[in-house]
Amino acid sequence: MSRLDATLALVATDSVSGNESALAGVVERSLRANPHLEVERIGDNVIARTTGFHSTRLLVAGHLDTVPGDPTLATLEADRLTGRGARDMTGSLAGILELASKQAPRSGEVTWVFYAREEIARAQSGLLEIGELRPDLLQADAAVLAEPTGGVVEAGCQGSLRVEVELHGLRAHTARPFTGLNALHRLGELLSRVASYEPREVVLDGVTYTEQLQAVGGEGGVAANVVPDYARCLLNHRVAPDRSRDQAESWLVDFLGEVLDDGDRVNVLDWAPSSPPALSNERLNALGALTRSPARGKVGWTDVATFRELGIAATNFGAGDPLLAHRSDEFITADELDQFATVLDEWLA
Amino acid sequence: MSRLDATLALVATDSVSGNESALAGVVERSLRANPHLEVERIGDNVIARTTGFHSTRLLVAGHLDTVPGDPTLATLEADRLTGRGARDMTGSLAGILELASKQAPRSGEVTWVFYAREEIARAQSGLLEIGELRPDLLQADAAVLAEPTGGVVEAGCQGSLRVEVELHGLRAHTARPFTGLNALHRLGELLSRVASYEPREVVLDGVTYTEQLQAVGGEGGVAANVVPDYARCLLNHRVAPDRSRDQAESWLVDFLGEVLDDGDRVNVLDWAPSSPPALSNERLNALGALTRSPARGKVGWTDVATFRELGIAATNFGAGDPLLAHRSDEFITADELDQFATVLDEWLA
Repeated sequence: MSRLDATLALVATDSVSGNESALAGVVERSLRANPHLEVERIGDNVIARTTGFHSTRLLVAGHLDTVPGDPTLATLEADRLTGRGARDMTGSLAGILELASKQAPRSGEVTWVFYAREEIARAQSGLLEIGELRPDLLQADAAVLAEPTGGVVEAGCQGSLRVEVELHGLRAHTARPFTGLNALHRLGELLSRVASYEPREVVLDGVTYTEQLQAVGGEGGVAANVVPDYARCLLNHRVAPDRSRDQAESWLVDFLGEVLDDGDRVNVLDWAPSSPPALSNERLNALGALTRSPARGKVGWTDVATFRELGIAATNFGAGDPLLAHRSDEFITADELDQFATVLDEWLA
Repeated sequence: MSRLDATLALVATDSVSGNESALAGVVERSLRANPHLEVERIGDNVIARTTGFHSTRLLVAGHLDTVPGDPTLATLEADRLTGRGARDMTGSLAGILELASKQAPRSGEVTWVFYAREEIARAQSGLLEIGELRPDLLQADAAVLAEPTGGVVEAGCQGSLRVEVELHGLRAHTARPFTGLNALHRLGELLSRVASYEPREVVLDGVTYTEQLQAVGGEGGVAANVVPDYARCLLNHRVAPDRSRDQAESWLVDFLGEVLDDGDRVNVLDWAPSSPPALSNERLNALGALTRSPARGKVGWTDVATFRELGIAATNFGAGDPLLAHRSDEFITADELDQFATVLDEWLA
């Protein structure tokens, strides 16, 4: 069976976040067929490990879930599979499953992790669930997370800070607005300030991180003839790994400062931690060399930050350009899957 | 009974919009006690007319309803009544009721109109209800609408145009916003453009109208990590009587033009028509002279526009500063009521 055929078999099983049970079953059965693996199922997560006598342990992880889509729409052409999750990240899962089942000489023990609920709120993550219930299963000297990276190492990940900004004004009749202060007009200033943001770039371990600041929500208004006295907006700030949450928040408050007044508020809603590139880790650096392409910094958030919290050096490496993930025409090619599986196999050898 | 006492009696009867029945009953009974008046009740509207042999007919109108408030909170001090509606416009109603009941020589026949539901959507207006069912009762050579004007003539009224502006963008991941176009950032530009608006002033019949443009609503946003592809905002444009709806709309589209793209839309939601000052009407001009203060242009919308649609020259003249209407501490003073009743009595004589 070709890697695209194997991917199709997985893509055809619906596994939208929260509904990974069937796919976890498929993966579990496939892994249990291998006597060299010790398999555990924790909820809808499946973990398989070799348990030989190497002192080193490598970990390869991928999430089972996809964003919503119709699995029956998957189509296979000669060298390309189109379908929900093909790129993020069922194609890479098929490759991982193949390598896990292969009984080959490895340079260390290997742990294979298939986890649930990555595409939704982090608190529901299957990886956190394993980390809570069986942290021992996640111990490793280096980890690869097979998020789509276009077949190159995308090191670390940026943090994600989500804040609400509340702006105040003074109510008035719209025929006499000079007796009030329009909070929506103030929101205009704030949004223009955000739009004027120039991304900061940081180089760490030789890879570049590009920060971002975007408005992701906004609202205000009282009635058709009333100058509104309140408006709010939601911002998402992508933060390079050299800044902590506090540093990012303090930079943001400072950046917005010129359009904020006394009484306005900046409320942090959410922080997803960043992870530095970890390319000083010899094994992760070696993975980069095997790809024959320069490593990049991961600008999105991924579970390498979760591995970092567990004290494990991790990086992103998976099949397919991440820019094409989550789209209705999401696809993966045979070449992309072959390159991914070949490099990963070499790395483990 | 002093005019403040009379006002208190009316203020104490709850008459929030849609609930004017009790107050209409009080007014109707009071008017029916006068043999010189012919009284009609149409729904919660009450109309009283003298039916002598003058060839001229003057009309005085006021609305029975108030914005929401607690009528039991009304308090009377020596020369000031505080309470919901005292200024807008129960105080003036008490004055009108007093003059209607007075059998005095008049320079023309007089029609007294007490109508329901002015403070809510225009389609529900009691004045429109009378105009539909009994337009004959509203015929007059000149009309005074007793909305609060601070005891001076506030001539005509401005139109009110309400539009929705829809802005488009392109969805993207917030870690890679350069692959999309943020519709909220575009909303910032639009709101800043609106905030930069410099009011246009127009002088008609010697009075000045000041136009306004205000954002009264806005919203946008898809998800916490998505560059939004859509945002909308609601604008309220107050339009001087020299511009039609079409002219106002075309000016607005032009004003916003520099921040609009192909595919954006400006949708007119609502238009309340304006009314020119009508101070060339000899009787309305005479009313201005009696106030001993220069007339002003009415910047808000009032039912003088409804009278204009009926072909009747009308103006605003009532007790109390309109800037203090609709506030929780709304009040009227004895002096304000006396000035109003005296001037109106002189005008009718």
